Amino acid sequence: MDRKLLLVDVDCGVDDAQALMVALVAPHVEILGITCCHGNSTLENVCRNVLRVLKICNKLQIPVFRGASRPLLGKSLHASCYHGVDGLGDVPDSTAPDLDLLQKEHAVLAMMRIVNEYPGQVSLVATGPLTNLALAVNMDATFPQKIKNLFIMGGNMESRGNITVCGEFNFACDPEAAYVVLNSFDCPTHIATWEFTCRNDLPWDFYHDWISQKTEKAEFMRRITSHSVQYTKSCAEEKEAWAKGFVTCDSYAVAAAIDDKFVTDSISCAVGVELSGTLTRGMMVLDTLGMLERKHKVFVMTKCDTEKLKFLLMEALR
Amino acid sequence: MDRKLLLVDVDCGVDDAQALMVALVAPHVEILGITCCHGNSTLENVCRNVLRVLKICNKLQIPVFRGASRPLLGKSLHASCYHGVDGLGDVPDSTAPDLDLLQKEHAVLAMMRIVNEYPGQVSLVATGPLTNLALAVNMDATFPQKIKNLFIMGGNMESRGNITVCGEFNFACDPEAAYVVLNSFDCPTHIATWEFTCRNDLPWDFYHDWISQKTEKAEFMRRITSHSVQYTKSCAEEKEAWAKGFVTCDSYAVAAAIDDKFVTDSISCAVGVELSGTLTRGMMVLDTLGMLERKHKVFVMTKCDTEKLKFLLMEALR
Amino acid sequence: MDRKLLLVDVDCGVDDAQALMVALVAPHVEILGITCCHGNSTLENVCRNVLRVLKICNKLQIPVFRGASRPLLGKSLHASCYHGVDGLGDVPDSTAPDLDLLQKEHAVLAMMRIVNEYPGQVSLVATGPLTNLALAVNMDATFPQKIKNLFIMGGNMESRGNITVCGEFNFACDPEAAYVVLNSFDCPTHIATWEFTCRNDLPWDFYHDWISQKTEKAEFMRRITSHSVQYTKSCAEEKEAWAKGFVTCDSYAVAAAIDDKFVTDSISCAVGVELSGTLTRGMMVLDTLGMLERKHKVFVMTKCDTEKLKFLLMEALR
Amino acid sequence: MDRKLLLVDVDCGVDDAQALMVALVAPHVEILGITCCHGNSTLENVCRNVLRVLKICNKLQIPVFRGASRPLLGKSLHASCYHGVDGLGDVPDSTAPDLDLLQKEHAVLAMMRIVNEYPGQVSLVATGPLTNLALAVNMDATFPQKIKNLFIMGGNMESRGNITVCGEFNFACDPEAAYVVLNSFDCPTHIATWEFTCRNDLPWDFYHDWISQKTEKAEFMRRITSHSVQYTKSCAEEKEAWAKGFVTCDSYAVAAAIDDKFVTDSISCAVGVELSGTLTRGMMVLDTLGMLERKHKVFVMTKCDTEKLKFLLMEALR
Repeated sequence: MDRKLLLVDVDCGVDDAQALMVALVAPHVEILGITCCHGNSTLENVCRNVLRVLKICNKLQIPVFRGASRPLLGKSLHASCYHGVDGLGDVPDSTAPDLDLLQKEHAVLAMMRIVNEYPGQVSLVATGPLTNLALAVNMDATFPQKIKNLFIMGGNMESRGNITVCGEFNFACDPEAAYVVLNSFDCPTHIATWEFTCRNDLPWDFYHDWISQKTEKAEFMRRITSHSVQYTKSCAEEKEAWAKGFVTCDSYAVAAAIDDKFVTDSISCAVGVELSGTLTRGMMVLDTLGMLERKHKVFVMTKCDTEKLKFLLMEALR
Repeated sequence: MDRKLLLVDVDCGVDDAQALMVALVAPHVEILGITCCHGNSTLENVCRNVLRVLKICNKLQIPVFRGASRPLLGKSLHASCYHGVDGLGDVPDSTAPDLDLLQKEHAVLAMMRIVNEYPGQVSLVATGPLTNLALAVNMDATFPQKIKNLFIMGGNMESRGNITVCGEFNFACDPEAAYVVLNSFDCPTHIATWEFTCRNDLPWDFYHDWISQKTEKAEFMRRITSHSVQYTKSCAEEKEAWAKGFVTCDSYAVAAAIDDKFVTDSISCAVGVELSGTLTRGMMVLDTLGMLERKHKVFVMTKCDTEKLKFLLMEALR
Repeated sequence: MDRKLLLVDVDCGVDDAQALMVALVAPHVEILGITCCHGNSTLENVCRNVLRVLKICNKLQIPVFRGASRPLLGKSLHASCYHGVDGLGDVPDSTAPDLDLLQKEHAVLAMMRIVNEYPGQVSLVATGPLTNLALAVNMDATFPQKIKNLFIMGGNMESRGNITVCGEFNFACDPEAAYVVLNSFDCPTHIATWEFTCRNDLPWDFYHDWISQKTEKAEFMRRITSHSVQYTKSCAEEKEAWAKGFVTCDSYAVAAAIDDKFVTDSISCAVGVELSGTLTRGMMVLDTLGMLERKHKVFVMTKCDTEKLKFLLMEALR
Repeated sequence: MDRKLLLVDVDCGVDDAQALMVALVAPHVEILGITCCHGNSTLENVCRNVLRVLKICNKLQIPVFRGASRPLLGKSLHASCYHGVDGLGDVPDSTAPDLDLLQKEHAVLAMMRIVNEYPGQVSLVATGPLTNLALAVNMDATFPQKIKNLFIMGGNMESRGNITVCGEFNFACDPEAAYVVLNSFDCPTHIATWEFTCRNDLPWDFYHDWISQKTEKAEFMRRITSHSVQYTKSCAEEKEAWAKGFVTCDSYAVAAAIDDKFVTDSISCAVGVELSGTLTRGMMVLDTLGMLERKHKVFVMTKCDTEKLKFLLMEALR
């Protein structure tokens, strides 16, 4: 397997933490930096959460950068009902690292610098709102040409939303950023949508085995997921279709980035983001009939090898 | 089986003709009137096509009414690539009945009168743009209370369009009318979406058996479907997902109206219609998570008994 | 002066009453009918208010028709802060005529019938939301060809709203209807916008002289305007620019309809109505540079003879 | 008069050149930097044009920075019909300075650095699309707090557009950037709208006197304005209201920035930018009635001392 160079952009909530932990233990993978974005929680909380994850994984040497504190147009949205107010389940953590450990360089400038240092070699994985990526291309229109490929967790494939009627959280948080990225990044692009991740959910039995490993990391995971698992189960009682199993959304994007064989089927088509709808603002749209006449097609994941995902997750907490 | 009183609103193209022919032979069904709407072709063509269908079925005694010649906002859309310019496959028909056979009464006024004559007893089946229905409720806000139930072919359930990226033809033709109907008709409402009809398509073998019956009606059907079948097969060659089988969209709405057991599964939820999106204008939206806080829920069909449909279609041409 | 045949469509609030009273006494003017529309108050109140005005003017022989009870898309807006809840200043009127006096015919059908009876001869004056007019053209696309000309009170010329930031009440009440009328009515069209009426306001001294005439009509006017005058003066205290004088908006449309010399200057251009804006939905737009490439131009009034208006108003209460 | 520290953000076309030349000779004014933005021409042309202006004024020591090459959402718009393809009237200039003279630092980073070096002391003058300013606040949410005040040429006050029906060029070029700036910059903000500049235009006689001064700068101005003056006069022949006189739009923003007494009247209100309208996208909206309930009010200039402007312009070419 080739060595992979990853730049990971996160709005570190619970599933970003899971995704990061998968990436951190993956062999042949080097994480060049972690850039932080507002989203599941405030930028400050996101930064702290990334440091907490790195600490538990003994990887505080990986540079962490503070990025956009709000969406391009300015109005923030958070996801505390699922992730907790602090983004990691609101469990006290007296040993959380200090924000002084963050790099001084702005996340967007760090992204620009790093892809210049490794031209054409960096896989960019984005598991939060796409604000930092949009700013990078707005600061340097050639940014997308310099990355190897892009893996996104976000958007829809069948108009099912999770934060608005048709809006998936990461896209609905900053629809303009999603629009910019999907219109400007002409590198190979792979998207794990909300519906894809729900459809490829994992059984609760797996979840329980996973967090029951006798490791410090598993104990950390048990604690930070407690709130969101409880929330999911309450939604399941109200028959919400997404809540039937354990869904670690962001991990699908990381799994796809680190293992070329993880995704077993996808739709290749141009996609768009609706900016002006009343019900559909932020929704991702698949141009399966080629009506938009766009050259650049992306891969919208439809099937994946969940056994591989289970393996990656188990390894992450070992 | 109860006797069913039907009022059918059509924009008579090929599949409307199929749907009408299913309804015309159904036992226990009385068609109180057929109202015409712009859509698959011009209003004039639609009216003529209905008369042609009635003539071949020996049912010219059923009153036919001329309705809206254009959508509420005024800009027409037609579907000649599929239905032919005249709406019925552009095959010459020297014996087409004269438009003098149409009733003088406006379709919208006829609808209002008929539901007043049979209060609470009429099943309204709409297989075209919803302009006439929207005008009826705009002329009389109590119109929806007077019908028994409503069956619509139109809209989306998973954001796949057929005339725009996300827009199904009937809804995209007159999004405002679809909006008005879905917001104002609080009677039991059953919707056969584009994706539903595609997913429950019939095999081409069935189609060939169907039109090979040695009847005048089958010969009529063979002639009027020739153009659209050819078009569908050319789309299949370009891998368009909808074009794998024979899809007689409007017949699903009629089948649901005449046989309570035709639909075997559906999603019950509030729905909306996007009016202002750039990519999504006219798209139907399912509020599966209850975010719109609307009381009125509709039935969005998901599964049906295609054997029943085959039977109904075979009977229609016998 | 030619004899003028008027059809007046109103959402009878205070200024509609003033406009009607101007029309009722105008020599050479015959009012063929008054059609009622939701708007300043509910349709029921509007109908009652028209009858009250006709009664005080001894003109109950003029037929009054009940029209649309709500905008095309269904969500009503009222203007009780200015007009009072009942639309005429909430002063008790124990002698108000009974709604039985209304015609049985629907307003939209009456409009269609009357213009057919007097083809090319009817001046249509619309002082409320344009719902009835939009329904008329939706029921019969040739309706606009049959009227002589159209006078509208509504819309903007410089983006100053009175009910939303950029929305004038009549247009904002039913933006789709305004859109339909301005796009479909290709007869000569004259528009008295909100900014035009404010800029040509009358001095308060005139108002006081006007209602101080010793007539039953003046006493009626004094009573029904008391609420709105008080409201206007409170807005003047808050420095709202429109509130400096006495503005009888709807009377400008009637004055223009009955006296060809009332309007002394206007902009001739195509106009549009914004349907999808967040801040600007319902705003009228002047295409002064010809960018929309539309053939039909309207007259957007800019200057008028306020002395004539004063005369007409004084006569109305004599 | 206080010493003024200016940071000028331009999309250097003809009137930006005029505005810069006004600022360059103003006593008590120090220009800390000139940042370039796409707009009237491409970013490359804009950068070159600024250098050409500085050269003719012997001010090449002022640092010039390359900024955004396109609007936030990515689709560029240019104004070559007025400014010429190169932005300065398409007159050959063999002595144009080389782009090597540009600073290496990105315009947005330069803006951020400079306001940090002079906290609370910098007047920011923006005469192009607001992309650079929007990026600055997106990179650092505290940026607006650090500037003294902001002077913008752009937007509308009465819905008259110059590039779309309702859209002024600078705002219509990047509506999202205008939205971000007007929503995020809570420093004292002064706006010279399109209608304001047209209404305060200068007589053509003045223009001819101005360019007839026997100086190198006047000769430069005569050459670069020749195209746009000719264009304006052709528009005047087609009765376009804006084209009656000489309008040097961007100079009004600079004049306001360097002379506190230049603006003699203004409307103080909150403003918004429409993002989603069909006819009105990019239009600036004045909330004169306080309906948006926003705290931050801006000054929308309505009157100015044109004699002062003439003086400043004459000085600029001396």
